[in-house]
Amino acid sequence: MSTLDLTVSAVQLTRDICDVPSVSGDEKRLADLMQEALTAYPHLEVIRDGDLIVARTNLGRDRRVIIAGHIDTVPINHNLPTQLSESDGVEYIWGRGTVDMKAGVAVQLKLAAELVEPSVDITWLWYDNEEVDSSLNGLGRLARNRPDLMLGDFAILGEPSNGAVEGGCNGTLRAVVRTHGSRAHSARAWMGENAIHAAAPILARLTEYTPRDADVEGLVYREGLNAVGITGGVAGNVIPDLCEVEVNFRFAPDRSTDEAQDYVRDFFAGFEVEFTDLAAGARPGLDAPLAQEFVAAVGAEAKPKYGWTDVARFSEAGIPAVNYGPGDPSLAHHDQERVEISQIVAVETALRAWLA
Amino acid sequence: MSTLDLTVSAVQLTRDICDVPSVSGDEKRLADLMQEALTAYPHLEVIRDGDLIVARTNLGRDRRVIIAGHIDTVPINHNLPTQLSESDGVEYIWGRGTVDMKAGVAVQLKLAAELVEPSVDITWLWYDNEEVDSSLNGLGRLARNRPDLMLGDFAILGEPSNGAVEGGCNGTLRAVVRTHGSRAHSARAWMGENAIHAAAPILARLTEYTPRDADVEGLVYREGLNAVGITGGVAGNVIPDLCEVEVNFRFAPDRSTDEAQDYVRDFFAGFEVEFTDLAAGARPGLDAPLAQEFVAAVGAEAKPKYGWTDVARFSEAGIPAVNYGPGDPSLAHHDQERVEISQIVAVETALRAWLA
Repeated sequence: MSTLDLTVSAVQLTRDICDVPSVSGDEKRLADLMQEALTAYPHLEVIRDGDLIVARTNLGRDRRVIIAGHIDTVPINHNLPTQLSESDGVEYIWGRGTVDMKAGVAVQLKLAAELVEPSVDITWLWYDNEEVDSSLNGLGRLARNRPDLMLGDFAILGEPSNGAVEGGCNGTLRAVVRTHGSRAHSARAWMGENAIHAAAPILARLTEYTPRDADVEGLVYREGLNAVGITGGVAGNVIPDLCEVEVNFRFAPDRSTDEAQDYVRDFFAGFEVEFTDLAAGARPGLDAPLAQEFVAAVGAEAKPKYGWTDVARFSEAGIPAVNYGPGDPSLAHHDQERVEISQIVAVETALRAWLA
Repeated sequence: MSTLDLTVSAVQLTRDICDVPSVSGDEKRLADLMQEALTAYPHLEVIRDGDLIVARTNLGRDRRVIIAGHIDTVPINHNLPTQLSESDGVEYIWGRGTVDMKAGVAVQLKLAAELVEPSVDITWLWYDNEEVDSSLNGLGRLARNRPDLMLGDFAILGEPSNGAVEGGCNGTLRAVVRTHGSRAHSARAWMGENAIHAAAPILARLTEYTPRDADVEGLVYREGLNAVGITGGVAGNVIPDLCEVEVNFRFAPDRSTDEAQDYVRDFFAGFEVEFTDLAAGARPGLDAPLAQEFVAAVGAEAKPKYGWTDVARFSEAGIPAVNYGPGDPSLAHHDQERVEISQIVAVETALRAWLA
């Protein structure tokens, strides 16, 4: 593909942009194609920062809505190019990126091109490096480089939400829980202290953990605390002196990051705990007038978002933000990633109706 | 060091060969130095197989004694080069390999060079890869490649025994105990099954294990069952679908290898167990005439050997074999590994007296 045609259907456009691979760090070609296509529309001011593209209207409306999506994907696993598929009478586009989140981006691109005079000013925002370490995130970079481009009264992030409006998101932290022992030859184990054995209570506590459901502004968030990695051992005949359990705590947005850390520290009381990654959750923000108006207009049910998303970045900046996009989030990153075609059409129709 | 001088004291020679690192798989340089030094002695026939060196007398004596030691060590942990140290008036050489087992090898090298006309024919045998998987063991390789070089009436292995004669050895096996789960995004952990959490009972059983003491031909062997490694985890945001605990079982020589495997299978009932390494123990063998003669001559006490050693390979071939060497075996593989200098001298003196 040498150019991107924004006049095709959102369904076709989903396939077109999925078939330009853009694994995190490798978004340049897709960003180039998008920039070139968008520049053809005189109602849009197009600005580029790295592989992030901003396209915005400047109509002097009294309210501005930010509508955003990331253009990178997790690595391809024999699931490109896209294919049309059907299952139980439901039609899908199958392939990497269809759910997370190029179907959402396709809808946004099409509406950006066609909505010459929307009812609110719109800042369309497509960014790079969402699927990797948060220090690389394109939206984070823009907030540092051009905070003026992130001003708005309300934000919609097109992350997959099955066409529902998902408010806020859980926070996430990672920690290493560590046990120490002392090495010895395993033939005389009683001379050492086995750090892997010492980790038994860590795993026991994790198996006894019961997730908390937290009601926040009417939405129920489920938490989760899991080991996501474990390592220990020196050699096959040595009593190990170190064992590290990496845990991931997904916490409801009624806990601050400090409170979440306290919870994990208390949970693993008696063990060394080192925090390695921390991102605050976001309250739903559905009490904001523009949010309520939006939910009513698109006629979608409001639900909690379990996964951490960049709505938290808007929330932190005081901008109410929701997730709203086509695709089943449980198929994100899946080898059988596929988006229901009818959801693409439904999200496009609802978003167009609200913005027109 | 560009050459090895076998005319220095056994104490100095211990330091010299410890200061040539030879972690398993990386023995070539030390083997080269030893081969070059030994070749200068015309009373020795020197043969090389990989990084194993045989040096033997061919005096037509009616009895042949094999005296052997391994030249590899476990990984270095900031404990080289060697240092002289003193504690409570006792002098030590400190550093990796001093105990396990280069002090023993140094004594052997010195006696090999000096005993031009020993009372028995001697096959000196220094080998590689003792500290790793038994499939790599240099002595095992020699038994396959050149079984003729392993013939003898009695064998002495210079493994650290505090200068006592240690009979037989425990057997050893390694197994991987495995749990399976199913992957999911950690934001929706309830969609998956956490294989690391599923390993909690494996560690719990290990912490509850009580070692058995077994009386075999008058010597008491203590068993041990330990985790020596644990791994699990896919990524920081994925519920892991696999956890593997590597365990090491040291079993008394009254259990066969089949019985030892049955014990481990029963111990981890309900979990997948895969055996990865297996070596039979050796009964003490102190009833053999040459063994009794040797014990009487060196005036040392007979004790059980806890660690598996290659005496089991000789034992299996019908050759009575004992462990006899300087160094406290409980300091083998220890970060504070250090050998008492007086033990090096004592073992050298006793061995020389018996062989001269």
